[in-house]
Amino acid sequence: MADVSTSMRLKLPVVCFILEIILIILFGALVQYDYETDAKEWHNQSHNDYENDFYFRYPSFQDVHVMIFIGFGFLMTFLQKYGFGSVGFNFLIAAFSLQWATLMQGFFHGMHGGKIHVGVESMINADFCTGSVLISFGAVLGKTSPIQLLTMAMFEVTLFAVNEFILLSLLGTRDAGGSMTIHTFGAYFGLMVTRILYRPHLDKSKHRNSSVYHSDLFAMIGTIYLWMFWPSFNSAITAHGDDQHRTALNTYYSLAACTLATYGMSAVTSHDGKLDMVHIQNAALAGGVAVGTAGEMMLTPFGSMIVGFLAGIISVLGFKFLSPILESKLKIQDTCGVHNLHGMPGVLGAIVGAVTAALATMDVYGKGMEDVFPAVADGSIDASKQGGVQALSLAITLGIALLGGLIVVFGTPPDTLCFEDGVYWEVPESEAPHEAQLTTVRTEETEKLSS
Amino acid sequence: MADVSTSMRLKLPVVCFILEIILIILFGALVQYDYETDAKEWHNQSHNDYENDFYFRYPSFQDVHVMIFIGFGFLMTFLQKYGFGSVGFNFLIAAFSLQWATLMQGFFHGMHGGKIHVGVESMINADFCTGSVLISFGAVLGKTSPIQLLTMAMFEVTLFAVNEFILLSLLGTRDAGGSMTIHTFGAYFGLMVTRILYRPHLDKSKHRNSSVYHSDLFAMIGTIYLWMFWPSFNSAITAHGDDQHRTALNTYYSLAACTLATYGMSAVTSHDGKLDMVHIQNAALAGGVAVGTAGEMMLTPFGSMIVGFLAGIISVLGFKFLSPILESKLKIQDTCGVHNLHGMPGVLGAIVGAVTAALATMDVYGKGMEDVFPAVADGSIDASKQGGVQALSLAITLGIALLGGLIVVFGTPPDTLCFEDGVYWEVPESEAPHEAQLTTVRTEETEKLSS
Amino acid sequence: MADVSTSMRLKLPVVCFILEIILIILFGALVQYDYETDAKEWHNQSHNDYENDFYFRYPSFQDVHVMIFIGFGFLMTFLQKYGFGSVGFNFLIAAFSLQWATLMQGFFHGMHGGKIHVGVESMINADFCTGSVLISFGAVLGKTSPIQLLTMAMFEVTLFAVNEFILLSLLGTRDAGGSMTIHTFGAYFGLMVTRILYRPHLDKSKHRNSSVYHSDLFAMIGTIYLWMFWPSFNSAITAHGDDQHRTALNTYYSLAACTLATYGMSAVTSHDGKLDMVHIQNAALAGGVAVGTAGEMMLTPFGSMIVGFLAGIISVLGFKFLSPILESKLKIQDTCGVHNLHGMPGVLGAIVGAVTAALATMDVYGKGMEDVFPAVADGSIDASKQGGVQALSLAITLGIALLGGLIVVFGTPPDTLCFEDGVYWEVPESEAPHEAQLTTVRTEETEKLSS
Repeated sequence: MADVSTSMRLKLPVVCFILEIILIILFGALVQYDYETDAKEWHNQSHNDYENDFYFRYPSFQDVHVMIFIGFGFLMTFLQKYGFGSVGFNFLIAAFSLQWATLMQGFFHGMHGGKIHVGVESMINADFCTGSVLISFGAVLGKTSPIQLLTMAMFEVTLFAVNEFILLSLLGTRDAGGSMTIHTFGAYFGLMVTRILYRPHLDKSKHRNSSVYHSDLFAMIGTIYLWMFWPSFNSAITAHGDDQHRTALNTYYSLAACTLATYGMSAVTSHDGKLDMVHIQNAALAGGVAVGTAGEMMLTPFGSMIVGFLAGIISVLGFKFLSPILESKLKIQDTCGVHNLHGMPGVLGAIVGAVTAALATMDVYGKGMEDVFPAVADGSIDASKQGGVQALSLAITLGIALLGGLIVVFGTPPDTLCFEDGVYWEVPESEAPHEAQLTTVRTEETEKLSS
Repeated sequence: MADVSTSMRLKLPVVCFILEIILIILFGALVQYDYETDAKEWHNQSHNDYENDFYFRYPSFQDVHVMIFIGFGFLMTFLQKYGFGSVGFNFLIAAFSLQWATLMQGFFHGMHGGKIHVGVESMINADFCTGSVLISFGAVLGKTSPIQLLTMAMFEVTLFAVNEFILLSLLGTRDAGGSMTIHTFGAYFGLMVTRILYRPHLDKSKHRNSSVYHSDLFAMIGTIYLWMFWPSFNSAITAHGDDQHRTALNTYYSLAACTLATYGMSAVTSHDGKLDMVHIQNAALAGGVAVGTAGEMMLTPFGSMIVGFLAGIISVLGFKFLSPILESKLKIQDTCGVHNLHGMPGVLGAIVGAVTAALATMDVYGKGMEDVFPAVADGSIDASKQGGVQALSLAITLGIALLGGLIVVFGTPPDTLCFEDGVYWEVPESEAPHEAQLTTVRTEETEKLSS
Repeated sequence: MADVSTSMRLKLPVVCFILEIILIILFGALVQYDYETDAKEWHNQSHNDYENDFYFRYPSFQDVHVMIFIGFGFLMTFLQKYGFGSVGFNFLIAAFSLQWATLMQGFFHGMHGGKIHVGVESMINADFCTGSVLISFGAVLGKTSPIQLLTMAMFEVTLFAVNEFILLSLLGTRDAGGSMTIHTFGAYFGLMVTRILYRPHLDKSKHRNSSVYHSDLFAMIGTIYLWMFWPSFNSAITAHGDDQHRTALNTYYSLAACTLATYGMSAVTSHDGKLDMVHIQNAALAGGVAVGTAGEMMLTPFGSMIVGFLAGIISVLGFKFLSPILESKLKIQDTCGVHNLHGMPGVLGAIVGAVTAALATMDVYGKGMEDVFPAVADGSIDASKQGGVQALSLAITLGIALLGGLIVVFGTPPDTLCFEDGVYWEVPESEAPHEAQLTTVRTEETEKLSS
C-alpha cells in the first residue's frame, strides 16, 4: 500500500464494477414492477389514476431524495479541504446503497411469489436505509477510503434490513420516521466503526479537521434542506390521509422549537457568548430525529415542541461536553458528531415513541387507531404492551448496531492525510497541497507501514 | 453594554428559552389538530384519502418553505462578511415567527370553540407571515442584534395578523399571494424600523457592505429558488382546481417577462453597460411580488407579462435612482433594497389587483366567480365595489406597517461593527477579523457609549 | 466593436425590450387559458378538484424547473471566473426561451380554434425546450455574448418545435424524456454552433477554462439537483398512473447504476487513479439521458440499470479520449463536454428506445399499451414498425440539429477574454481582473479587429 492513489486506480474500479454487475444480475433475477408501476397489472383493474400511490408519495420521496444527496452531502462539506470527499463519496455510497437496500429490504420483507416488488414505497425505503449508512459515514468522515465506505455500506445495509425486519415485521414496532431503525442504528453502527478504526495520531491532521468561512456556508445548504424536508421524511411512508398530514405537522413544530433551543444553548455554552456554527448546523436538526417514531402518533403540536426543545438542548450539550470525552476517554473520533445529532436524539425519539404508544386510547384515536397501531386496534395487544414492544425495539437496535459495527474491518489512509481531498481527488492546481510536501508525507508513512 | 458578545451570552439564551417556553405553554392551552390531521375526526366520516387537503397543498407548502429558509436566507448572503448572520439569523427568526404566527393568526381568524386548529393551510399561512418578517429583516440586515430581531419579529407578526384580519376577514379583500399583506406590509414596516435606527456613521462599515465573488454566487442560490417557487407561493392557498393552476401559470409568465426587463434595465443603467448582480438578484423577482394579488384572477398570461415587465423596470430604477435618495435625504438605510423588491412592486401588485377585481364579470369567470370573488358571486357587492375594497386595503396596509414600525425601539451594535459576522458568530480563525483590531474598535465604542 | 461593454449598454437593452414586447403582443393575440386553468370552463362541467391536471403534474413541473434554473445554471459554474455568466446567462436565456417555446410549441402542436392553450403541460413542455437550449449553451459557454445567446435561443427554440412536431405529431414517435428531442437535438445543435464559432487562439484564455476548489463545489449543486430530479423530468409528461410511476422508477435505477460506472471509470482513466470532478459532475448524469425515451416503456429496472451502466462508461470515455480529438481534429471546442453528457447518451437512449419499442408485446403491456404505444394498441402499426419509426426519428433529429446549428452566425468576444465575467458583469473590486491589464488586452484586440 505504498501509494494510496495507485491502489485506487486498480481497486476502486474493480470494486465499483463488480458490485454493479452483481446488482444488475440480482435485479434481473429477482426484481419486478409492483402492481402500481406495471402497465398490464395496473390496467387490469378499474380505478382512477389519482388512486395510484405515486400521487400520494412521490413528492415526499423527492424531498427525502434531496435530504439524502444534498442534505447529507453538503452538511459534511464544512471541512475546509474535504468538500469533494463529503459530497462526492456521499454520492457514491448513496447510489450503491439504494440499489443494495432495494434487494435486502425486498428479500426480508417485500417478496411476492419469489420476486421483489418495487415502486415508490420501495424507493423511499431504500433511501431511508441509505440515510442510515450516511449517518455512519458522518462518524468516519475524512478517515476512510471509498472502498472501505462501500464495504461498510454493504454490511450496514444488510444489517439494517435485518433489524428493520425484526422490528417492523416480527414485533410490529411503529417507527415511520426511523428514530430507531435509521438514526439510532446508523449512529451507533458508525460510532463502533470509528472506535475500531481509532487513530492515535489523528492530531497530525487536526489543522484540516475544521472549517473555513465558505465551507460553513456550503454546510448550511445541507442543514437547511434537512431541516425543511424533515416533515416529508417522517411522513413519507405513514398511512395515507390524516396520518401523513399529522406527521408532517408534528415534525414542523418539533423542529421549530428545537431551533430556538439550539440558538439559546449555543450562545450559553460557547466561548464569549457567540454562536457556534457546529451547533446551528447540527443540533437544530435533532428535533426531526426525536419525533421520528412518535410523529405519526397523536403527539399533538404541544408534545412535539417539548420533544424538539429537549432534543436541541441535549444535542448542544453533547457537542460541548460529551464529544470531547468520547474522544479522549473512549477513543471515539466522531468527525461530524453524529452521536449528538442522531445517536442521543434517536434514543430520545424511541423513548418518546414508547411512552406515546403506551398512552394511546380509542378515545383519542377513534377508528384512526387502525392506521397507527393496527395490533392495538384489532385487540391482539393493548397499548401498554405496544409501548413495551417499542422499548424492546430500542434495545434490539442498539445491540445489532454495536455488534454490526464490530464486524467491519479494513486498512486505511495514514493519519497525516486525513480530511484531505488531494488523496482521492484531482484538486485544482492552485489549491492542491504542495506536491513535494504530500510526497514527503507519503514516503514517511510508507516507511512506517512497511517497517 | 461594554462588550457585545458578553451580553449575548446572557441575553440571547434567556430570550430564546423564555419565548419558546411561552410558545409551548400557549400551544398546550390553545392549539388542536384540525379535522384533516386528527386521527379520530378524519376517520369519523367517510371520504377518500386523496380528498385530504394534504395532497392539494403540501407540495406547495414545501416550495414556500424552501423560499423562506433557503430563498430569503441565501439571498442575503451577498454581504462578504455577513453570510453566517444572513442565513443563521434568518433561520432563527423564521423558526420563532412561524410558531408565533400560528398563534396570532389562529387567534384572529382560526378559532374553533376556543381552540386554534392547525393543518397544512395554517402551516402555509404561518410561513407567509414569516416571509413578511424576513422582508423587514432585509432592510435592517447587518445592523441589528438577534435579540432585536426577535423583538421585531414578535411585534411584526402580531401586527401582520391584525392587518390580515382587517383585510381578509373584515373587508373581504382578495390577496392570495400577499402583494399587500406580505410584501407591502413587510417592506414598509422594515423601512420604518431602519429609519428609526438610522446610523449616521454607517460609512465606517461601508467596506463590509458589499459582496465578493463567491458571496454573490451564494446569493444567486437564494434568488433562483425564490424565482422558481414563486408560482407555488402565490397559488399555495388559493381555491383548489383551476384557481391554483391559473395562479401558478400567471406567476410563471410574470416572472419570465420581469427577468428580461431586469437584464435590459440593468445593462442600460449600469456603469459601462455591464450587468449588475444586485439587479439580477433582486429585480428579477419583482414580477412575483406584483402578481401576488391578481395572480388568482383572470389576469391572463398577457396581463401577467405586462405586470411583470413593469415590475422589473420599476425595481431596477429604484435600485439605481431611488435608494441613494432614500438614504441621503430620508435617512433610510435599506441594506437589501427591500423597497425596490417588495415595496414598490407590492404597491403595484395591489393596484393591479384592484383594477382586475373591478373589471371582473360573470361572462369571464362563470361559476368560478364563487372561488375568486365570493362576495361578488353571491351578489352582496358588485365588482367595482370589490375593486374599491382592494384599493382601501392598500392604504390600510401602508398605514399599519408604517405606524407599526414606529413602535419597535431598542439598543444596537456600534456603527463600526455592522455587516460583520465576528460580532455574533465564531468565525473560522484564518478569516476572523484581526482580534486586536476588533478589540480596539470595541474599546473606542465602549468609551463613546459610556461617555 | 472597440469596447465590448459599451456596445452592451445599447444592444442588450434593445434586444431584451424588443423581444419581450414582441412576446407580450403575441401572447395577447394568441394565448388562452386551457380548460383546466380557466375559471369559467373548469366550472362549467362537474368533476372533482383533484382531477385537475395540476395535481398530477405540478410537483413534477417544479422539479423540472429546478433542473433548468439551478441544475443547468450551477452545473456550469465550475469555471473559476465565469460563475456570474454561467448562472446569470442561464437565467436570462431560460426566461426568454420558455416564453418563446410556449408560442412555437403551441403554434406547431397546441392550437385550438386559432388560440394556443396553456396550462401545466405547456409549462413543462416549454421548460423541456428550454433545457435543449441550455445544453447548446453548455457547448459555447464562456465564448459568446448574451445577445448571441438570445439569438441562438430564438432559432433553436423554433427548430426544436419543428423537430418535435415532426417526431411526436407526424410520425407518432415516443420520446417522453427527450433522449432525442431534447438531448440529442440540443447537443448536436450546440456542437455545430461551437464548430462554426471556432476560435483558433482560445488557448489565450486557457488559464480561465478551469475550476477552483469552491467553483467545483458550486457545480456539484447543479449536478446533484439534476441527478435527483431526473426521474421527475422523464416522467413529467407521460400518461397518468402507472406510466409516470414506472418512468420515475426506471430513471432512478438507471442513474444509480450510472453513478457506480462513472466512479469506476473515473478512477481507471484519471491521472494517478484519482477521481476527476469533471466526470463526477457530468458522466453520472448520463444514465438519466439514456433512459429518456425508453423510461416510460416496460424496460424493467434490470434493463434500466444496464442502460445506465453503459451510459456512464461511454460518457467518461468520451471526456477522456473523444473530447480532445474533437477539439484538435474537428475544431469543436465543447466547453462543458455536452457531447459526452447529452450527445452520445442521447443517441444511446434513442437506440434503446427503438429496440424496446420493437420488442413490445400485448403480453407484457396489456391494456397499458394504449398509454405507451397508442398506434400499436389500436392496430394501425405493429411494434417492429414503431421501432423503425423511433430509429428514423433519431436520424431526423440529428439532421435538423446539425443543419440548424449552421444557420446561426454572428460576432463574438476576443479569444483573450473568454471565460471571464469581467467583460459582461460588474465584478466585486478585490476580485476583478486588473483594470489596466483588461484595458491593455482590449486595446490589442481592438487594434487587431480594426486592422
